[in-house]
Amino acid sequence: MSIASLQNAFFQLRSNRLFEFFVVSIILISALVIGAKTYQLPPTFLSWVGFLDTAITVFFLIEITIRFIGEPNKARFFHNAWNVFDTLIVVVSLIPIQDSEMALIGRLIRIFRVLRMVSIIPELRVLLNSLVKALPQLGYVLLLMFIIFYIYAALGSTFFADINPVLWQDISISMLTLFRVMTFEDWTDVMYEVMHVYSFGWAYFLTFIFLTTFAFLNMVIGIVVNVMEDEHQKENHAKGEPTLAELQAQIQELKQLIQNKQL
Amino acid sequence: MSIASLQNAFFQLRSNRLFEFFVVSIILISALVIGAKTYQLPPTFLSWVGFLDTAITVFFLIEITIRFIGEPNKARFFHNAWNVFDTLIVVVSLIPIQDSEMALIGRLIRIFRVLRMVSIIPELRVLLNSLVKALPQLGYVLLLMFIIFYIYAALGSTFFADINPVLWQDISISMLTLFRVMTFEDWTDVMYEVMHVYSFGWAYFLTFIFLTTFAFLNMVIGIVVNVMEDEHQKENHAKGEPTLAELQAQIQELKQLIQNKQL
Amino acid sequence: MSIASLQNAFFQLRSNRLFEFFVVSIILISALVIGAKTYQLPPTFLSWVGFLDTAITVFFLIEITIRFIGEPNKARFFHNAWNVFDTLIVVVSLIPIQDSEMALIGRLIRIFRVLRMVSIIPELRVLLNSLVKALPQLGYVLLLMFIIFYIYAALGSTFFADINPVLWQDISISMLTLFRVMTFEDWTDVMYEVMHVYSFGWAYFLTFIFLTTFAFLNMVIGIVVNVMEDEHQKENHAKGEPTLAELQAQIQELKQLIQNKQL
Amino acid sequence: MSIASLQNAFFQLRSNRLFEFFVVSIILISALVIGAKTYQLPPTFLSWVGFLDTAITVFFLIEITIRFIGEPNKARFFHNAWNVFDTLIVVVSLIPIQDSEMALIGRLIRIFRVLRMVSIIPELRVLLNSLVKALPQLGYVLLLMFIIFYIYAALGSTFFADINPVLWQDISISMLTLFRVMTFEDWTDVMYEVMHVYSFGWAYFLTFIFLTTFAFLNMVIGIVVNVMEDEHQKENHAKGEPTLAELQAQIQELKQLIQNKQL
Repeated sequence: MSIASLQNAFFQLRSNRLFEFFVVSIILISALVIGAKTYQLPPTFLSWVGFLDTAITVFFLIEITIRFIGEPNKARFFHNAWNVFDTLIVVVSLIPIQDSEMALIGRLIRIFRVLRMVSIIPELRVLLNSLVKALPQLGYVLLLMFIIFYIYAALGSTFFADINPVLWQDISISMLTLFRVMTFEDWTDVMYEVMHVYSFGWAYFLTFIFLTTFAFLNMVIGIVVNVMEDEHQKENHAKGEPTLAELQAQIQELKQLIQNKQL
Repeated sequence: MSIASLQNAFFQLRSNRLFEFFVVSIILISALVIGAKTYQLPPTFLSWVGFLDTAITVFFLIEITIRFIGEPNKARFFHNAWNVFDTLIVVVSLIPIQDSEMALIGRLIRIFRVLRMVSIIPELRVLLNSLVKALPQLGYVLLLMFIIFYIYAALGSTFFADINPVLWQDISISMLTLFRVMTFEDWTDVMYEVMHVYSFGWAYFLTFIFLTTFAFLNMVIGIVVNVMEDEHQKENHAKGEPTLAELQAQIQELKQLIQNKQL
Repeated sequence: MSIASLQNAFFQLRSNRLFEFFVVSIILISALVIGAKTYQLPPTFLSWVGFLDTAITVFFLIEITIRFIGEPNKARFFHNAWNVFDTLIVVVSLIPIQDSEMALIGRLIRIFRVLRMVSIIPELRVLLNSLVKALPQLGYVLLLMFIIFYIYAALGSTFFADINPVLWQDISISMLTLFRVMTFEDWTDVMYEVMHVYSFGWAYFLTFIFLTTFAFLNMVIGIVVNVMEDEHQKENHAKGEPTLAELQAQIQELKQLIQNKQL
Repeated sequence: MSIASLQNAFFQLRSNRLFEFFVVSIILISALVIGAKTYQLPPTFLSWVGFLDTAITVFFLIEITIRFIGEPNKARFFHNAWNVFDTLIVVVSLIPIQDSEMALIGRLIRIFRVLRMVSIIPELRVLLNSLVKALPQLGYVLLLMFIIFYIYAALGSTFFADINPVLWQDISISMLTLFRVMTFEDWTDVMYEVMHVYSFGWAYFLTFIFLTTFAFLNMVIGIVVNVMEDEHQKENHAKGEPTLAELQAQIQELKQLIQNKQL
């Protein structure tokens, strides 16, 4: 069998819906194994799980090899971030692990294997891509929010550090405390403590809550508007709906036609 | 009286607005009886409630019989999920109950009789159907969210199980804990406990909150956009508004007309 | 001076922007008096507040009389719910109060006088009317939500009453507890308590949270869509923008014209 | 070098992207210095930070001078609120500080220097302006919300002050407590305490939550609708899309043309 026909066969295979379904099942089993390991299990079961684990690693190695051989353009294979992720997961799984430090990384790798679900199911990949694509649009709102957090945290750690060092010791701990205030988690406890020393402490917390809520709302509305505009345009294109400008051009054309007719 | 005329009479009856109103009243009384039973009541009142209960069961039996006889196409009757639900509720109510195990089921059935409100009021039925119809559209977002939960729960039960077994013992308990974190319910207590051991524990919680909030927002926006598109199309159809493409076709026609005129 | 000219003068007066501004100021002072009374005050100040109180009552009496006389159509005056509300507030303020029971009602009336702000400022009246108008549209969603609450409360008080009577004693207390769960306020404490007895208790709480969140989202989205449709239509009407159907009719007319021309 | 050419050179400089980038870097360093000061630092590092601080102040003085000289129209310079803010920050930084009271103000000024990030990056300035512009539209909703808060706080401090003076002592403390209830932060603790005395206390809290949630929702929806309308109009203008009214006018013109042709 020539290499070209092998590549062709593998390309067919990786595009096959049944093959995809089979890979998804293996990932599901791998996820279940990860879940099962967190329970107290009898030793016989554990050895079975260990065996399954090795089997899954081998299967993933074979699968990634099939997909690599099946790729017509080898160079492009690693341009796809998902392929790089998949390969990395498989390669690290193969490293023999002895000491306990590495064992931890081994467990981590096994857990992240569940993310292969996203890399294998096209709809999830599209969804995640659209999530990631939405981020830069929000860049400036996130920056503004960070500035608000930073200024309030600087104020907080300057004035409140002596009141409760656990919450306001330095700027990074203060930012964590402010995030807690933003989620309304026991924020009044934090405020009442401050108000015992500074009676106008409520102004600090209320302005912070108003500013962040307002900025958050703005961010959400920004996403909604963007998504709806996109959807609107996509829909219009899909339906082959002409734009108003196109209609206008056609009416103009008609006018020209009538004017030229009887000269 | 022939069976056909009886069926016709019953069909008239079940479509009758007054009959519907009467059934709703009975369901309301049945709901009140359920509510009343949860209070400390004098025994005389309790025996009255027991009698009412039997009366309601008998009434529901009669009502479902009327609706079944009134149905022109008997086979289609059980294709409607609501009819199946109604019949099941009535049938289970009829089973004589002795031992306490069954008594519990009897009480459950009586409580679920309140759901018959949804099956009898058309507007509520439409509302619930639209809710159920919205679910599959969200399928992939829900799957993505489940994957996020699963990975974080696996990480949590791997690393934090020794810190607090009540919250992180195994993967299912960890998922419940993560759901709690997602609702911001005392999430800082959970985080601070973890940060005593792993000082970078905040990264685990903050990334989890960002990811789930973002996915949740995406889901909400997805529903909003879908609902608005639907509404938009429905409205346009209802008003008999032509599409832009139709207008374009008509302008094209005009052009043809002018060009053909003077040849 | 004839009654007609008096009515005319008063009609002018009540439509006068300066008069409105003066009434708003009096209401503001009345609001400040109410606020001031909640502080520990010296007795001399209190007697001043008492005097101001009487003065405000007298002023409101005069103001409502002016508005009533100024009304061209006396019968229509009490068709306006806000006028009825204003008159009631003034009339009850006039009743001399001796015993302490009535003194409480007197204080209540004084507090509700702040609501006159809404009745006097047209923009607030419009806003509140639009809020009230939005309610019936949500009627069925609210009914569905109430049914969900009722069924879960019935289940809760049936099964959990023995676990914690303070939270689940009867159906009304259970509904209050469920509202608390819906606002995520210490809901895990409620759940963990239940899970000690019924290990599958989490299913009860999670399904409840999903259902109510989903119904709530649906309600919000319903309002958004309604408001946007209204806004859209209002805007189009205001701009004198023709509908697509109107454009279609005009193109049709053109076609007719061309066809008729050369016969 | 003449003053005019100097002004021109400085105008070029302040519009220069590289200069902007350099100023942003300095602000970033200034922000890092503020953050660093909140940590426990060795004294040598602290003296370095003090030196950096002076350097930043001098740099900001030079930068604002360049921008002022570079401004073609000197009078307009202080019409821009951001320029006033920048100048104020620099001027106050220059005041020599001795006693501890002033030292505090010095630290405050240094923290607010981070806000210069907003004044220097055009995109953030636009974002903040749009946030500020959205506020007046919400004016009446905010007023309505304030009235709701005021009335409930007056009721609360009248009836509940004896139950818990810490939460309901006077009207301002009651408003803070109600804000806490609005954020759902331990609101049931507040309610249960009240319900021990007034068993219908839940009605007070539930109506308050419904009213404020409803008003808040209304506000959010108001912003969404406004933003989307703006976006819609902006987009249509940007694309040079004609309005339907323009299309109608052109069809009318066509009609005129046809009618005039063959007379």
